[in-house]
Amino acid sequence: MATQKTQKKTTVRPVKRRGSVKRSAQHGNKGKVNPGREIEAVSPIKIYFLGGLNEIGKNITAYEYNDEIIIIDCGMAFPDSDMLGVDIVIPDFTFLEKNKEKIKGIFLTHGHEDHIGSLPYLLREINVPVYGTKLTLSLVDAKLREHGISKKSKLVVCEAGEIVHTGCFRVEFIGVNHSIPDSVGFAISTPVGTIIQTGDFKIDSTPVYGEMIDIARFSELGKQGVLALLMDSTNAERRGYTTSERTVGESFEYLFSKAENKRIIVATFASNIQRIQQIIDAAVAHGRKVAVSGRSMINVVSIAMELGYLNVPQGIIIDISKVNSYSPEQIVLITTGSQGEPMSALSRMAFADHRKVIVGPQDFIIISATPIPGNEKTVSKVVNELMRLGCTVIYEKMYEVHTSGHACQEELKLMMGITRPRFFIPVHGEMKHLTANASLARSMGIADENIFIPEIGSQIEIYENEIRCTGTVPAGKIMVDGYGVGDVGSIVLRDRKHLSEDGIIVVVTTMDAEDGHIITGPDVISRGFVYVRESESLMDEARSLVLDVIENCLDNNIREWGAMKGRIRDDLSKFLYEKTKRSPMILPIIMEI
Amino acid sequence: MATQKTQKKTTVRPVKRRGSVKRSAQHGNKGKVNPGREIEAVSPIKIYFLGGLNEIGKNITAYEYNDEIIIIDCGMAFPDSDMLGVDIVIPDFTFLEKNKEKIKGIFLTHGHEDHIGSLPYLLREINVPVYGTKLTLSLVDAKLREHGISKKSKLVVCEAGEIVHTGCFRVEFIGVNHSIPDSVGFAISTPVGTIIQTGDFKIDSTPVYGEMIDIARFSELGKQGVLALLMDSTNAERRGYTTSERTVGESFEYLFSKAENKRIIVATFASNIQRIQQIIDAAVAHGRKVAVSGRSMINVVSIAMELGYLNVPQGIIIDISKVNSYSPEQIVLITTGSQGEPMSALSRMAFADHRKVIVGPQDFIIISATPIPGNEKTVSKVVNELMRLGCTVIYEKMYEVHTSGHACQEELKLMMGITRPRFFIPVHGEMKHLTANASLARSMGIADENIFIPEIGSQIEIYENEIRCTGTVPAGKIMVDGYGVGDVGSIVLRDRKHLSEDGIIVVVTTMDAEDGHIITGPDVISRGFVYVRESESLMDEARSLVLDVIENCLDNNIREWGAMKGRIRDDLSKFLYEKTKRSPMILPIIMEI
Repeated sequence: MATQKTQKKTTVRPVKRRGSVKRSAQHGNKGKVNPGREIEAVSPIKIYFLGGLNEIGKNITAYEYNDEIIIIDCGMAFPDSDMLGVDIVIPDFTFLEKNKEKIKGIFLTHGHEDHIGSLPYLLREINVPVYGTKLTLSLVDAKLREHGISKKSKLVVCEAGEIVHTGCFRVEFIGVNHSIPDSVGFAISTPVGTIIQTGDFKIDSTPVYGEMIDIARFSELGKQGVLALLMDSTNAERRGYTTSERTVGESFEYLFSKAENKRIIVATFASNIQRIQQIIDAAVAHGRKVAVSGRSMINVVSIAMELGYLNVPQGIIIDISKVNSYSPEQIVLITTGSQGEPMSALSRMAFADHRKVIVGPQDFIIISATPIPGNEKTVSKVVNELMRLGCTVIYEKMYEVHTSGHACQEELKLMMGITRPRFFIPVHGEMKHLTANASLARSMGIADENIFIPEIGSQIEIYENEIRCTGTVPAGKIMVDGYGVGDVGSIVLRDRKHLSEDGIIVVVTTMDAEDGHIITGPDVISRGFVYVRESESLMDEARSLVLDVIENCLDNNIREWGAMKGRIRDDLSKFLYEKTKRSPMILPIIMEI
Repeated sequence: MATQKTQKKTTVRPVKRRGSVKRSAQHGNKGKVNPGREIEAVSPIKIYFLGGLNEIGKNITAYEYNDEIIIIDCGMAFPDSDMLGVDIVIPDFTFLEKNKEKIKGIFLTHGHEDHIGSLPYLLREINVPVYGTKLTLSLVDAKLREHGISKKSKLVVCEAGEIVHTGCFRVEFIGVNHSIPDSVGFAISTPVGTIIQTGDFKIDSTPVYGEMIDIARFSELGKQGVLALLMDSTNAERRGYTTSERTVGESFEYLFSKAENKRIIVATFASNIQRIQQIIDAAVAHGRKVAVSGRSMINVVSIAMELGYLNVPQGIIIDISKVNSYSPEQIVLITTGSQGEPMSALSRMAFADHRKVIVGPQDFIIISATPIPGNEKTVSKVVNELMRLGCTVIYEKMYEVHTSGHACQEELKLMMGITRPRFFIPVHGEMKHLTANASLARSMGIADENIFIPEIGSQIEIYENEIRCTGTVPAGKIMVDGYGVGDVGSIVLRDRKHLSEDGIIVVVTTMDAEDGHIITGPDVISRGFVYVRESESLMDEARSLVLDVIENCLDNNIREWGAMKGRIRDDLSKFLYEKTKRSPMILPIIMEI
């Protein structure tokens, strides 16, 4: 990893906590929000919301003050079900590319794909320093290596508590709890005031790795005066408090005892290193060896072990190929596939397609995850199939085998209460999550006019006493399909949808360019329409219909190929719909000689 | 509707409850299960599980005794996400068609699509009497009319409490609660004993329409001796008790007060007539008029009003076209679209595509439904969009605006406890639901060897003291696409999937049949692959690659078109994958002159 220690030395200093700062007395921060400055700032701070609004994923926010820009996070999203064939979705970087010269750096809150996944695509265009914690940047570096741009990227490792000065921005890293270690939020100090962006967070008083979220620091900032709070909205609909990660460990302890003589297989998110630690701990306690299955699981476990995020006693980890030489009660297998992804290790086990693991009645399988919205059916499919094979399967509804990494309502309110922002901006979530978070803010006494629900592309300006939406900048979904970035657009998707529903019929005719008579054809070929062997007469009728259409055109002196193709399309389409109630795509081709 | 009153008179008699029947003393029914007979039955009763096992939907079960068959329910299922372009899925009727002569009748538990939806397809092949309650058969009749087979079908209206004698079967209709009125379960008495099939049910002590489930009759049958219980498993994973439908009415009452001056729009399932009744009741209480939107909602409301299942005071219902001449606080709109279906009325409102209703901040929208697994994202999309338009949206997580129609664990246990079956067979559900229901049966003291989890196609035989799986019969998913029943199979689906992911490239060349030289082409045409205008050079390269391949073939004396097409497919595929990392379908066509 190209960590820039020199640069770090000059720009990153440990935070000096100022105990003497004037406190703003009122809740909701009607007092001073810029305690560090004597002179009123004239320019506003601008915020550009380039992703993560009214959507799940591709979180990215840009802050600008006096022609200097910093970026917080740079995530990707998974395609919607109507984005057929699309691999991932990344933000539209047009605005950033246009303002390339102003950008000072990118700051990352944590190492999840929805916060770092589109970084390679941005760094290709704009090579600026990337600041993040050790684990985050290790995951980023692995990603940049895949894209072949690791060497020329500048990754600057920071720790919670550190401050990066870049341009007029002072960015402080503040430790938070989340479902991946080394997560931080940011306090961004500008001449106008301090803005807190929490990143994804929860409040876990008994975290498995690292410290509890730095409530003290957020409180201190609150006392000093916070201009605006940009807060995670993912769980804003959920009442109460998110369970501690440690509770899941207790469930493992109980379930491992229950599993007795069976082999234990636990599926979870590869990035949830705390979860993996707890599985390993339970395995060690029950005298079992641990094997790891699934590409991303193997990658993350090896990075986490190397960097010391996982504490694994010597001799516990064995290679997956050795699993079958142990008896079931000696083994715990940690695997990917907790979302029922069709190509994942657990799916392969369920559908008897895993090269090294055959599951059956000797297996006790724990799915330590909740289906992400949209994945409910694929997860059920895997559970059903494993049960059919005789496995015991434990999943979300049965025990506390998973907990969320995002703050629920009480935690969100607590964060608002201690930071006491003048302005509140819910981020990271669909409209319903943002709306729910805004309601919480209102319930905490923040005035309606001080709450702003951004949309993707919103550009706002914050003054000391005012928040204004001043327009929009280009922002949206850029679809990545294979190597193509943005070359799949609405026309291609429309065609794919059409093709997926009723298939295609290609009609080819070779015609004489001069007198327009048919030389050969028409040939009618279909794909994805009907099973041709059982529909020969239909295809014959289609062919003679096309022949009639062409002859009719010729009789009526229609010799313009475009018009003739239009006729073929219309008449064949009508004929097929009457016969089959289906509307395949019709592609007439005329070869001219 | 062709209700056969004459036939009914001869075959249907009111139940005579026998108080003097010998009671079986032991729980779990280890005593007599065939109290009505003195002589031991020699033949077993056979049950064929033709659908609804390890799947949601297309419930259908057949019972056979001594060459006489009856069928319970005949439902459809919605296609899985991998069944591209498929409209509905129906059971494989091969077994029934082969045994046509034996079939005495079809009995329907209730009028939901997953229990009646494929009836038109079966009746087309096998015209036997259909027995059901009034509402169920009215919905069936509407369906048969659409398929043009209403007139020749024999629909026999029965009531809860009635018994139909057909062949050696005595089928008793027993009232149950469910999310559609007029739902029943069946007690099927045969020479071997009595089998209870609950149909979809819940226990609602305060139902909105009709009576509470006939617990007394189920108990009585339990005391007389029940050979086997086939029970709904849909909610077997859920603890506790399903909330009464009336609770939802209380939420409406509260929310309608809260809505004050806004227009109220409630989206729910068209078939949930009790729900619609409660919406109308709340509207009447708040002095609002009611309009109805969505084709299926209009249909069901008109059938339900005509048959007396809905109690609507004069002048309350107004036409949707009149809605805009009232002020918001005078209106309640009942609409389809509670599942976020893209073409439904609510979706059209959300995406500003409804011809008569424009929604905005004046609207208070209640989604009175829970997303069916798989629909979570489409529902969220609609909620988000309505919120973006400024509507207030109330959905499942906020208030009790929906309750399930299926029994939860305590209700299921109660049913097992009162019917005390010797054999227990969970039906209607995925493997995980069936497994959960089987666990409940074990917890109720039913021995493992007396519990049978069927798979689709299972054939079992039940003797007085034994249950045996004796093989399988043809059963599965027949896909209906337009008019085509079963003509879409794995090849067509595989092609549609391929087309949906990367599109198609058609390569056409006209060649001389004799010396094999190229007369015209190759032309390369793509659909759903790339946006051609921006990829001209790629398409040019593809064309010249194909030209090279053909010339190379000719040089090497490969003149067999099949081989040449294979080369084109392989080389072009490889080239495109290297360039784009995509694998479009490649369709080489050679026109011969």
